[in-house]
Amino acid sequence: MTGSFYPPQRTLMGPGPSDVPARVLGALARPTLGHLDPLFVGLMDEIKGLLQYAFKTRNELTLPVSAPGSAGMEACFVNLLAPGDTVIVCANGVFGGRMKENVERCGATAIMVEDEWGQPVSIDKARAAFAEHPQASVLAFVHAETSTGVRSDAAALCALAREHNALSIVDTVTSLGGIELDVDGWGADAVYSGTQKCLSCVPGISPVTFSPRAVERIQSREHKVQSWFLDMQLVMGYWGGNSKRAYHHTAPVNALYALHESLVMLQDEGLEAAWARHARHHAALVAGLEAMGLSMAVAAEYRLPQLNAVNIPAGVDDAAVRSALLNEFDLEIGAGLGALAGKTWRIGLMGHSSRERNVLTLLAALESVLGRQGAAINSGAALPAAQAILAG
Amino acid sequence: MTGSFYPPQRTLMGPGPSDVPARVLGALARPTLGHLDPLFVGLMDEIKGLLQYAFKTRNELTLPVSAPGSAGMEACFVNLLAPGDTVIVCANGVFGGRMKENVERCGATAIMVEDEWGQPVSIDKARAAFAEHPQASVLAFVHAETSTGVRSDAAALCALAREHNALSIVDTVTSLGGIELDVDGWGADAVYSGTQKCLSCVPGISPVTFSPRAVERIQSREHKVQSWFLDMQLVMGYWGGNSKRAYHHTAPVNALYALHESLVMLQDEGLEAAWARHARHHAALVAGLEAMGLSMAVAAEYRLPQLNAVNIPAGVDDAAVRSALLNEFDLEIGAGLGALAGKTWRIGLMGHSSRERNVLTLLAALESVLGRQGAAINSGAALPAAQAILAG
Repeated sequence: MTGSFYPPQRTLMGPGPSDVPARVLGALARPTLGHLDPLFVGLMDEIKGLLQYAFKTRNELTLPVSAPGSAGMEACFVNLLAPGDTVIVCANGVFGGRMKENVERCGATAIMVEDEWGQPVSIDKARAAFAEHPQASVLAFVHAETSTGVRSDAAALCALAREHNALSIVDTVTSLGGIELDVDGWGADAVYSGTQKCLSCVPGISPVTFSPRAVERIQSREHKVQSWFLDMQLVMGYWGGNSKRAYHHTAPVNALYALHESLVMLQDEGLEAAWARHARHHAALVAGLEAMGLSMAVAAEYRLPQLNAVNIPAGVDDAAVRSALLNEFDLEIGAGLGALAGKTWRIGLMGHSSRERNVLTLLAALESVLGRQGAAINSGAALPAAQAILAG
Repeated sequence: MTGSFYPPQRTLMGPGPSDVPARVLGALARPTLGHLDPLFVGLMDEIKGLLQYAFKTRNELTLPVSAPGSAGMEACFVNLLAPGDTVIVCANGVFGGRMKENVERCGATAIMVEDEWGQPVSIDKARAAFAEHPQASVLAFVHAETSTGVRSDAAALCALAREHNALSIVDTVTSLGGIELDVDGWGADAVYSGTQKCLSCVPGISPVTFSPRAVERIQSREHKVQSWFLDMQLVMGYWGGNSKRAYHHTAPVNALYALHESLVMLQDEGLEAAWARHARHHAALVAGLEAMGLSMAVAAEYRLPQLNAVNIPAGVDDAAVRSALLNEFDLEIGAGLGALAGKTWRIGLMGHSSRERNVLTLLAALESVLGRQGAAINSGAALPAAQAILAG
């Protein structure tokens, strides 16, 4: 017979999920309402308004897709593409590659703009791709690459798409709530995110927003969206502005309580204050790691404050370090992905995980584990360096 | 500024979600683990075993899709179909119509076997469809139609599919945990369900199971599955049996805690005992409603014990009754859908909602509301009739 499951309280400093505050877990466990209950419909309206605030947009079609970020990605592609379309896809990590898969499964052609993992998307290469493929109807890119910890210039890429009369699809899974994100200011067209990164909500939901240009393309489609579940023409009927909600699917009611609470917390702190908090703790972490003798994998100008790729020192056993952190300190950090597997760690300071306690705990725990592994580190230097930044 | 949301404690007796027990809500709110944490991977293995028990199957490919039941439906269709395929779809309510949408969005042809809403699927009509379309590769039907409260003969329909060398796709969203369901005994091939009905877990997850025949068809596909998110060849890498889990998407960790707990509760009660409980409370509800002077919309032999379609008495204001139940008693029942809108109520006795307290509360509340609406009912007869069954 299988018994109940009682997980330990981990400190989540990997690439997501991040630490979920007790306040959000409390909201998650409130009594379930029916998905057509008038009170729940009121909650949906509030979530929409809060997401508009977080995304900095007035887009009417702003809602949480009832599935994880990869379904949010798919929602953007299947709604904007039809067979035969050409899409310019910028890839500088794992998630650009996943976008290519999405394009091809829509029967469209992906023109790849490849940059090295650890580098941002090159605007010049993307411009050259448009010159060569002027028929491209969409430009897709990742704002904050979770696999490498790199930020690309979303404003410039969205502007480039508009110059060429193409729509932009922007992955903001790891950026929403952590760094500047300005959907209307950028003129981004289809933007998806996740709940388990800088919003510090539980995983499983994908906030999305579509510009009026994107909605126009959706409404003028001649080819039905290949996914019934993700068809925004149907989802709009349930999440749309009119008072009569049409049943589409059963919303994940309790997960939306949690999302609502995490968005209320973001609103109460203020977007700019949340971005500043992420920047401050990032600076402290970097100061500590560098004082210890470690080096960052990404150049300072492109670094994501919420996801820190650190080079694994020569001779150190990647998996053993991560296991020791987990088993001794209940502390999770992320492994490298793809080309960076075994070469970097990914240390997340996302949302509720971006706080002083986490920075100091990670530095002390890592110093302890690396020291016992015989790595050449400067003992005792990390915490004072981080504390100097935090005090500053 | 938007504040926190505090829902009231409703009694959920509609078509789902059903009442979620405190024990499941407690599990939901436990500390979040990373989706690649070894402890979480252990939990995934337990969930798989518990789902195999609930579905009565030894199918290796048994897992919870990270999205609601309509995504589980889509997972079955997109993985088993390719453009040009022919599928026999049995429709006797809303969800057969949704299956047709899924088939067509896969580029396949749906041969519709239509039965009246409120009637079960006709085996003879389905057999005739195979005779006319021997190339059909799949037979799809709904075991328990949530829109009408009707049970179809799943064993006979699965056998019919096998006779014709076709795979079966079976919607068990409303049946899993509530009435007999025997995936291996029936030889069903692709079966999907939901968490928010007779499992009394929160909404948002869709358990699925695929037979070895279905897996063989998936593995021999020449045409990529059109959904990246739902591609079972990829999902298998994360949920599969081998010890090395490949990251596919971030699992909805906390929702899976809740699913695990609800499945442990089902295991502890025992499948057959859970089915018997649903049957007993159904009998009590029907006795009470009939004693009150109301009539059931579905013939006794096809009725679902967990979803009771009741004819709305002439002259009674459907919406006013449902609103009064909700506002005065915090009690939700369901409206009719589609052809049955305004003609029936749907009273759910699913999972944790299938208990004596709910039967008696519903009867008393409905009698009170109908009495004040001036409906011709037999006052005072309902509860003794129900209690006689419960005492029986």
